[in-house]
Amino acid sequence: MSAPLRSPFAPKFVPNLYPVPGVELGTAAANVKYKGRRDLLMAFFQPNTAAAGVFTVNEATAAPVLWSRRVIETTPSDVRALVVNAGNANAFTGMRGHKICADVAAEAARLAGADPAKVLLASTGVIGEPMALAPFKTYLPRISEGLSASLYKDAAEAIMTTDTYPKMVSRLTKLDGHVTPITGIAKGSGMIAPNMATMLAFVFTSAAIAPVCLDALLREAVDSSFHAITVDSDTSTNDTVLLFATGANGQETPIDDPSDRRLDEFRKALGEIMIDLAQQVIKDGEGARKFVTVMVEAARDTATARAVGFSIANSPLVKTAIAGEDPNWGRIIMAAGKAGAGIDPDALKLWIGPNLVAKGGAVHSRYSEEKAAEHMKGQDILLRLDLGQGDAATTVWTTDLTHGYIDINADYRS
Amino acid sequence: MSAPLRSPFAPKFVPNLYPVPGVELGTAAANVKYKGRRDLLMAFFQPNTAAAGVFTVNEATAAPVLWSRRVIETTPSDVRALVVNAGNANAFTGMRGHKICADVAAEAARLAGADPAKVLLASTGVIGEPMALAPFKTYLPRISEGLSASLYKDAAEAIMTTDTYPKMVSRLTKLDGHVTPITGIAKGSGMIAPNMATMLAFVFTSAAIAPVCLDALLREAVDSSFHAITVDSDTSTNDTVLLFATGANGQETPIDDPSDRRLDEFRKALGEIMIDLAQQVIKDGEGARKFVTVMVEAARDTATARAVGFSIANSPLVKTAIAGEDPNWGRIIMAAGKAGAGIDPDALKLWIGPNLVAKGGAVHSRYSEEKAAEHMKGQDILLRLDLGQGDAATTVWTTDLTHGYIDINADYRS
Repeated sequence: MSAPLRSPFAPKFVPNLYPVPGVELGTAAANVKYKGRRDLLMAFFQPNTAAAGVFTVNEATAAPVLWSRRVIETTPSDVRALVVNAGNANAFTGMRGHKICADVAAEAARLAGADPAKVLLASTGVIGEPMALAPFKTYLPRISEGLSASLYKDAAEAIMTTDTYPKMVSRLTKLDGHVTPITGIAKGSGMIAPNMATMLAFVFTSAAIAPVCLDALLREAVDSSFHAITVDSDTSTNDTVLLFATGANGQETPIDDPSDRRLDEFRKALGEIMIDLAQQVIKDGEGARKFVTVMVEAARDTATARAVGFSIANSPLVKTAIAGEDPNWGRIIMAAGKAGAGIDPDALKLWIGPNLVAKGGAVHSRYSEEKAAEHMKGQDILLRLDLGQGDAATTVWTTDLTHGYIDINADYRS
Repeated sequence: MSAPLRSPFAPKFVPNLYPVPGVELGTAAANVKYKGRRDLLMAFFQPNTAAAGVFTVNEATAAPVLWSRRVIETTPSDVRALVVNAGNANAFTGMRGHKICADVAAEAARLAGADPAKVLLASTGVIGEPMALAPFKTYLPRISEGLSASLYKDAAEAIMTTDTYPKMVSRLTKLDGHVTPITGIAKGSGMIAPNMATMLAFVFTSAAIAPVCLDALLREAVDSSFHAITVDSDTSTNDTVLLFATGANGQETPIDDPSDRRLDEFRKALGEIMIDLAQQVIKDGEGARKFVTVMVEAARDTATARAVGFSIANSPLVKTAIAGEDPNWGRIIMAAGKAGAGIDPDALKLWIGPNLVAKGGAVHSRYSEEKAAEHMKGQDILLRLDLGQGDAATTVWTTDLTHGYIDINADYRS
């Protein structure tokens, strides 16, 4: 097949990526599957680094997800290494898949001088293909010899599958008076022959935050970021978001209460970092030409707002209309109605961009299809729906559904 | 845009369509929206015709759906007319839409010499566009002058929107010793600029069956037919299935018990008629090049089987793989897992056509990708998943997701 075009949203510049004290990284071209590109990442963490994780809810859970979930459950207060490979998902690989996880963790642990139970793993790539241990045995030792605190761009590249650009973001924040960097990388919704699948994100900070508190902060941030995006409603077997806090920023003691006001600035920065990464994932969605923001407001509760928002964001008919730059608002109403969330069509208000389209159960008397069509020609599309029920609101992000999506996903594996 | 290609599944011949005693039909080119083609259907029924209906669950319910639902609730034992138009869905049209329904029903009732509360309505076409009364006022009287018992093909054509062929089926069955025809028409999943939307089906029989029993038979048949198909997971505002039983077949009294064994042959024929119509709808799905049967077996219960079946049948990644003739079985596992239905990956067995692909949580040792790829090249694709849980099973039908779907749905309305 022809190579996917680079996303029109690909950033023009590499952002400034702040090193995170307590984290060292390295990568290699290990030939897990791809040839001649980085596909293996290893990071080491200083002792007593805390970690939190959010994992796929897909029931066909990949072996490395089961492994990392257990590490987070048992030793979240002292993780020492992370190993990520691209090219093979190690999913639906039976007992052999679990054995590979143990072996890779043992090798990374040996190099880090730590316990294998303190090594986190993530994989992305083909589902159902046995994974070989050899690339890890050969390349993890080489990576361990060249670790550095500044290789985030390499790291972002090493976890790509069919992403058309590496996804990274970084900022400095303050925590309890201490300058604290947060730096994150992600890879996205590339699902391509042969069935690449997975969203991965890794966020590193030198904050000193106890695991339970870190977990609360991560879940809160994921709810408004990675849990608010959809490309095609498909959920990978391998989705993983990990947050590491090394505690190297000079704080005397870790913060352990999520409601501690000293977290305010950090929480805000973390939320923005996560939304930035999630939006980068969407903007590199397969075949994406438009970035679509769906805001649902005045809902009875957040669950209702989310159900309606995702019903719109996942509707193939809405997404193809956006691809065609068609302000086909009847489909948005249809998608809101099919969510089964208990909406009243007569109470709805719908805007496309700044244009009020419908209210009172019918098209607005001054609706201008011409103006709505003008908005649809842009690269950033805003659909806003007021349910007229209550005070809850949510925002979800998605893309249009284009020929590019079909091209990327229908191609025979060869 | 270029006209959609005729579906490769379009039938080569018009089937034999048996007239149904007690039903007369007629059509007109009424210019509701289209020019120069039939777009208006009216049918009259003899007194005491029973009717049953299944309607969309979309909460943005179209006005004619609300109207017909009320008729079925209040006078299911004596419906006298049916009016169906194509081109305008009369959905999200506010109070004016309800007024149009009352006016159209009044006109048909006047012509039939009946009460407006005994007139059923259905519409399909643009959402949100005000509908004019004039075409009905002008053309319903003309239709009423030329009604005939044999115009089912015309009727099937009159309700088409972007269907590439009219959908009809007919057979003779026996009920309590009386020869009883069942003849049905349907229109499908054409959703095209400007936002055509809706599945409609109308089935007519001369059986004498009391409304409550007819309702039970219809729901039973719909569960295995129209409730077992999906093109793109989108649910129209106007979906309507109506079953009419005129009682003109010579039975002395209507059957009123769904478990009456005299219904056996009729029930079987009705079920086959409904599956035939539902499959015709799918085979004319937008851009469809493949007809896909998803069988889920050995499930804990039917709800689990349906959840997994629809998760596979609606997965864009599975559907694009089928379009690409790619036996990309990892995506099928992914789709089964994301249903959240409580499956155990290690207990699954998956077949593509006759080929066992996966079992015991990994690819089958003798799986031949070549043979699976050969099956994927056919027009009829069979995906079979054994959940290893229990005795329940279900079958759902869908299509591939092709460039044709995007072409049809992304085109700007002009």
